[in-house]
Amino acid sequence: MFKNNRLNFIGCDNKFEESDIVLFGAPFDGTTSFRPGARFASNAIRVESEGIETYSPYQEKDIENKKIYDNGDLEFPFGNVHKTMDIIYRRTKQILDYGKIPVMIGGEHLVSYGTVKAIKEKYEDIYILHFDAHADLRENYLGEDYSHATVMRRIFDIVGKNKIYQLGIRSGTKDEFDFAKKNTNMCKFDLDKIDEYVDKLKGKNVYVTIDLDVLDPSIFSGTGTPEAGGVNFKTLLDAVLKLKNINIVGADINELSPMYDNSGVSTAVACKILRELLLVV
Amino acid sequence: MFKNNRLNFIGCDNKFEESDIVLFGAPFDGTTSFRPGARFASNAIRVESEGIETYSPYQEKDIENKKIYDNGDLEFPFGNVHKTMDIIYRRTKQILDYGKIPVMIGGEHLVSYGTVKAIKEKYEDIYILHFDAHADLRENYLGEDYSHATVMRRIFDIVGKNKIYQLGIRSGTKDEFDFAKKNTNMCKFDLDKIDEYVDKLKGKNVYVTIDLDVLDPSIFSGTGTPEAGGVNFKTLLDAVLKLKNINIVGADINELSPMYDNSGVSTAVACKILRELLLVV
Amino acid sequence: MFKNNRLNFIGCDNKFEESDIVLFGAPFDGTTSFRPGARFASNAIRVESEGIETYSPYQEKDIENKKIYDNGDLEFPFGNVHKTMDIIYRRTKQILDYGKIPVMIGGEHLVSYGTVKAIKEKYEDIYILHFDAHADLRENYLGEDYSHATVMRRIFDIVGKNKIYQLGIRSGTKDEFDFAKKNTNMCKFDLDKIDEYVDKLKGKNVYVTIDLDVLDPSIFSGTGTPEAGGVNFKTLLDAVLKLKNINIVGADINELSPMYDNSGVSTAVACKILRELLLVV
Amino acid sequence: MFKNNRLNFIGCDNKFEESDIVLFGAPFDGTTSFRPGARFASNAIRVESEGIETYSPYQEKDIENKKIYDNGDLEFPFGNVHKTMDIIYRRTKQILDYGKIPVMIGGEHLVSYGTVKAIKEKYEDIYILHFDAHADLRENYLGEDYSHATVMRRIFDIVGKNKIYQLGIRSGTKDEFDFAKKNTNMCKFDLDKIDEYVDKLKGKNVYVTIDLDVLDPSIFSGTGTPEAGGVNFKTLLDAVLKLKNINIVGADINELSPMYDNSGVSTAVACKILRELLLVV
Amino acid sequence: MFKNNRLNFIGCDNKFEESDIVLFGAPFDGTTSFRPGARFASNAIRVESEGIETYSPYQEKDIENKKIYDNGDLEFPFGNVHKTMDIIYRRTKQILDYGKIPVMIGGEHLVSYGTVKAIKEKYEDIYILHFDAHADLRENYLGEDYSHATVMRRIFDIVGKNKIYQLGIRSGTKDEFDFAKKNTNMCKFDLDKIDEYVDKLKGKNVYVTIDLDVLDPSIFSGTGTPEAGGVNFKTLLDAVLKLKNINIVGADINELSPMYDNSGVSTAVACKILRELLLVV
Amino acid sequence: MFKNNRLNFIGCDNKFEESDIVLFGAPFDGTTSFRPGARFASNAIRVESEGIETYSPYQEKDIENKKIYDNGDLEFPFGNVHKTMDIIYRRTKQILDYGKIPVMIGGEHLVSYGTVKAIKEKYEDIYILHFDAHADLRENYLGEDYSHATVMRRIFDIVGKNKIYQLGIRSGTKDEFDFAKKNTNMCKFDLDKIDEYVDKLKGKNVYVTIDLDVLDPSIFSGTGTPEAGGVNFKTLLDAVLKLKNINIVGADINELSPMYDNSGVSTAVACKILRELLLVV
Repeated sequence: MFKNNRLNFIGCDNKFEESDIVLFGAPFDGTTSFRPGARFASNAIRVESEGIETYSPYQEKDIENKKIYDNGDLEFPFGNVHKTMDIIYRRTKQILDYGKIPVMIGGEHLVSYGTVKAIKEKYEDIYILHFDAHADLRENYLGEDYSHATVMRRIFDIVGKNKIYQLGIRSGTKDEFDFAKKNTNMCKFDLDKIDEYVDKLKGKNVYVTIDLDVLDPSIFSGTGTPEAGGVNFKTLLDAVLKLKNINIVGADINELSPMYDNSGVSTAVACKILRELLLVV
Repeated sequence: MFKNNRLNFIGCDNKFEESDIVLFGAPFDGTTSFRPGARFASNAIRVESEGIETYSPYQEKDIENKKIYDNGDLEFPFGNVHKTMDIIYRRTKQILDYGKIPVMIGGEHLVSYGTVKAIKEKYEDIYILHFDAHADLRENYLGEDYSHATVMRRIFDIVGKNKIYQLGIRSGTKDEFDFAKKNTNMCKFDLDKIDEYVDKLKGKNVYVTIDLDVLDPSIFSGTGTPEAGGVNFKTLLDAVLKLKNINIVGADINELSPMYDNSGVSTAVACKILRELLLVV
Repeated sequence: MFKNNRLNFIGCDNKFEESDIVLFGAPFDGTTSFRPGARFASNAIRVESEGIETYSPYQEKDIENKKIYDNGDLEFPFGNVHKTMDIIYRRTKQILDYGKIPVMIGGEHLVSYGTVKAIKEKYEDIYILHFDAHADLRENYLGEDYSHATVMRRIFDIVGKNKIYQLGIRSGTKDEFDFAKKNTNMCKFDLDKIDEYVDKLKGKNVYVTIDLDVLDPSIFSGTGTPEAGGVNFKTLLDAVLKLKNINIVGADINELSPMYDNSGVSTAVACKILRELLLVV
Repeated sequence: MFKNNRLNFIGCDNKFEESDIVLFGAPFDGTTSFRPGARFASNAIRVESEGIETYSPYQEKDIENKKIYDNGDLEFPFGNVHKTMDIIYRRTKQILDYGKIPVMIGGEHLVSYGTVKAIKEKYEDIYILHFDAHADLRENYLGEDYSHATVMRRIFDIVGKNKIYQLGIRSGTKDEFDFAKKNTNMCKFDLDKIDEYVDKLKGKNVYVTIDLDVLDPSIFSGTGTPEAGGVNFKTLLDAVLKLKNINIVGADINELSPMYDNSGVSTAVACKILRELLLVV
Repeated sequence: MFKNNRLNFIGCDNKFEESDIVLFGAPFDGTTSFRPGARFASNAIRVESEGIETYSPYQEKDIENKKIYDNGDLEFPFGNVHKTMDIIYRRTKQILDYGKIPVMIGGEHLVSYGTVKAIKEKYEDIYILHFDAHADLRENYLGEDYSHATVMRRIFDIVGKNKIYQLGIRSGTKDEFDFAKKNTNMCKFDLDKIDEYVDKLKGKNVYVTIDLDVLDPSIFSGTGTPEAGGVNFKTLLDAVLKLKNINIVGADINELSPMYDNSGVSTAVACKILRELLLVV
Repeated sequence: MFKNNRLNFIGCDNKFEESDIVLFGAPFDGTTSFRPGARFASNAIRVESEGIETYSPYQEKDIENKKIYDNGDLEFPFGNVHKTMDIIYRRTKQILDYGKIPVMIGGEHLVSYGTVKAIKEKYEDIYILHFDAHADLRENYLGEDYSHATVMRRIFDIVGKNKIYQLGIRSGTKDEFDFAKKNTNMCKFDLDKIDEYVDKLKGKNVYVTIDLDVLDPSIFSGTGTPEAGGVNFKTLLDAVLKLKNINIVGADINELSPMYDNSGVSTAVACKILRELLLVV
């Protein structure tokens, strides 16, 4: 009766020890160049997750039957990118050390750099499956090496050539698209190559990073840089469902900025994608 | 010149006596568990209906040529579910007694219980055509029998086995989906079975209840529990247009919560669906 | 490191056993006649409390030095007023049984009925200090006895004549003002009688109920029924600070509806009033 | 039971014939230079008036005991200022011809030109009591003679020198303030001269025009040109209450743009001012 | 370092003299009958254009390589439709006189009347390619000849029979659809005839006018009269890309009202359509 | 006619060379701990300044008669605090080198550090007049030395003991208030000591920094950390008017986050304060 007021993503109320997956939030948006606010995503997702069911009629599974622990949010020093990346890296490493799978709620996209760095230390051969509207492949951005706009380039520096599979990309500079042609696998504009990519990634260690702005802003307006021409919810959902065939060693969703969508739809969308993602991990 | 300021749904300015259809509002959202606000739908729809034309290019018909009376809103005691249901039941019964067809603007979905109860007294054999994102088939919800989450189960109690045809359902507990397999006809996720259902319902007395959250929240964000992965406007419109082939003895649209969509789009959508629905009745 | 994600009002992270005050939320707005949403107040207050300091320069005290336990929110069956009142009553009783002081975050104003009922069982002689824009003294409202508009009348039924002290009242029917003249102490429009009332209440057992709409909507727009002409923040703050001279045996704040104030100011105001209230209890 | 859905300002549901006051809306904002939206004021005020009581504790009077008829809104041709002015003029004239007092809900401030023109034809000697943040005394604005920014100058052309009493003015060009010094009575920044003005106007025929932006935007943010430094609600209310001592032959409130205040407070404020104004007429 | 703060659409920072295209804004919404606000579109588009890239992966071209001059906004007298039309007409004429192509950002749709009038004086034989949800073919509207609802009829008066090609039309009166059958080419509901129309228009002088409400309000809610059932972004984008095969002598986009879409998505959509349109001109 | 689209604060359209004051924006909010968005202030202020007059009836002066150049916004690398501070410092230094007075529009409060650093190099003996809700005197914040919460402490490090005069402070830790007692002059809660402070500062070189959250959130809700209990607009305005008696060598206003106030009032307030501030410099 007099228990604490615990704030979890719906159904993720297991104890740490008994869990297979550890969920945590990375409320960072320090390099956002256009409209900040992704720092508010993780708690908004937890609060609003009450509005969805724990049962997925798509997978005919219930998240209450998975062993997931919600570890809450990391705490960051505002204005210090490098310390922030280090905090994410260290938490991911700890989760991996306990033999559990890390799933992170961003934050802006740069947060994936921290997790991938830790993942790479555990798994020599690591592949990245990247859903996004933006290529995020700049060498640097406004003079900075570590930015939401450079994150896949920095991850490229870690994982190496042809290890990154990008889907849904519809925005970038000419240089970024040129870089992608030589160094990554890129499916422009839509997710049509998901079957091909899943096929190629079978049996590999895969880190999945979903920048939710891969969705069309019609269904996901709550993001810093809305980019029209994205995929609809069902297309992304179908792609996520296909991930059950690959070996996910870590994952994140990022770039929800709930404050730009007063209707709450974007947060509800993020909740549903996260539920389905957790069910395929 | 000095006439009263009458507030109608557009084109529904006939006298009661000369009308075939009686429209009324049921501004109730007392069992809403997540985000209330459906109580504001009916007057918002009337005010915003000024923004659409009375002429439908889809049906090539004009609502001004139909005989419809807008009876305004019912008045409810706040916090008393049973009295509310009774008020809806009695008004529906009166409309039926005058030989007119009731069309109700909710309110949350529980309001359909009141109308169906009256409809069933007039028509022994009654079928329900149900558009929704949610199954609404729980036996009870948080200990309560009468709730937006149980309304189709209560209607099942009235109309009996295999009389309910459900379309677009994409959310519910495992128990609800199991119940549906045995006791209702359910088309999950989309409206693909609309032709089959319309075919089966030809010649029957049909009550149509449209929970507008069957639409994807991209086009209908103004609702209490947005559920991504719904149908788009044209798909729902096409389904509504097909209803001209069945014998509609009553209908409602429900679950618009205008306050969650500041852009006014959701209300405009509800207006257009209501116009088309009134034109097929 | 792997600790749970506890959601408290700022500084209220003590254990139950060692606490003097128990804070809990009552997310109920079922009888709201105009604009619902007070159900969202308690968690909004907890989340936004991060934006204020734990230290009060007004009282030169820090809430971290008080022993307060935040017990989270009660769970209610939607649409059932009587069960809801009973749940509040029972939780309050339990808190009192452990010798601790209950402080409740509403919800709509009717929630105070539940707490006062329990308080009265413990303290034979109980006084009510009531801040509000509205008299809330109707005998019934739209046929219902238990309503946000009747709550002080129902509390009057419990505590008896001349036990209620009302401040800031600027809205009601003629009947309510007439009733007040005979049966309560009422300071209309402002809080000018606060010194007189505090003086009279010295040495008594006092339950304090603050309907935050006593504030002018210029500073508190996030409420169901904004009523212009209220007091400003400093006036209410000064009144609250004076409560250190009376013996508070229970308290609540109510009628924040955060969704009507997108700026977040109303929630920040509620946080600050709650901080100061907790420091005077 | 099957009555029409009439939309009135609260308590103004009398028949035209038996009424002393005729209320009507003028939903025009065609010359608004900054942010349009005043066209939505009149119906917003009617709908939201449900949120206030009919009884005024300030005047200890109930609007239900006054004989007021709400005649709804005028219909205007969009984009045609002169026809619009003419429609207002003619409706006002008709109301006056029936011996009733016109009270108009704007619309932008230019609407007052239409009513004053009609009033002047009935009453040779007419005085204007003008509450506003802006002087509205430009000779022309962007080349146009008829504009919200010139309305008091046009009214000056009708009523003549020293007939206009302006209160609360805190914005204008140097020319406007110079013109006021010579041709009107102006109380700058506040309403401090209200007693003096009421005194002078005793026994005269007075038209009252309240541009609600005379209020500080803290309490009235829903207006096209918010101008900080205005009076608070109580100050305006006190001034309105004093008008019971003068002979009001017509009145209007104007410049509410409800869409700029999502909280609904501005509309609630307009409702309350209108209630009190109707009670002093 | 101490240079002026120039506000351009992204990449359109060339000098007038060296430019091929001249972009200008027409911030007029004076005949809007439902919800005004299109006056704010042009500057919102310029400010938000920072959120998109200058490079189009669809056309594999960069807007920085085009010679475009952004001439800022025209200034209009509020409330005077005819002077406004004349100002647009004269600026267009000047741009044409310098041998440059005018591209206008509305404003409401009536602004196209001004440009087409000037275009017609330069090009004897002129065709109109018109994307819209609404037919805009009324003879007059509320007694006015010049209105957003009559603009294509007035343009018809200028360009003559069978010169207007309309796409996406899904709203209008029966009269308008009848008029279209006889006098224009109309593709109802979608853009399916774009290939046919582009084919027919090859080698002709074409003025392109895009009322952005041709888009479904799911992706474009920021408009005065949202009309569900429109095309999605990709469909419109594909149509725009096909325009590279015709000879565009002038163009406009219109009817963005940024204030109705707090998320900023509608403005981002307008930016992207404008970028692609400028790249095909 | 074909001139560039220059975006200035109203009336500040002089050339650099002929100006006495140089206005510039510092769109930085990188250390904001609660709600970011101050980066959007400067352009919002420029765009919305169109809604106020250039003439001040308070000072009976017109800003068009002052020589002010608006230099637009600085460009910062996102996520790099130190480079950002350096860019502000260098621009301020350049302005000072040309013998002009810098006036900056923040941004979050940390931006003042950059200007004061440059000011101090020019003026050996420099005093700070600081309006704020928050003390901003922490030694560090979340491990960082340079933060909006430490800015006055860092400025203290530059200017030394008893050089800072703080007004309106109503939030901070106990340590900050203790530090202020020993090292700064602090007027808590209100601006009552403004006359005393102005008196003391006569004849000194004074840098004025106005964190607009010194205002009560009733009139200024558009800020990251709203803190109830602030001063009203007139009180701040009166204080600013008194600054004409001191020698201002530089100034800034900061912490407007326009996105949190959809009504636009906060931005309008900032415009008016800036107009009056520019008129007293």
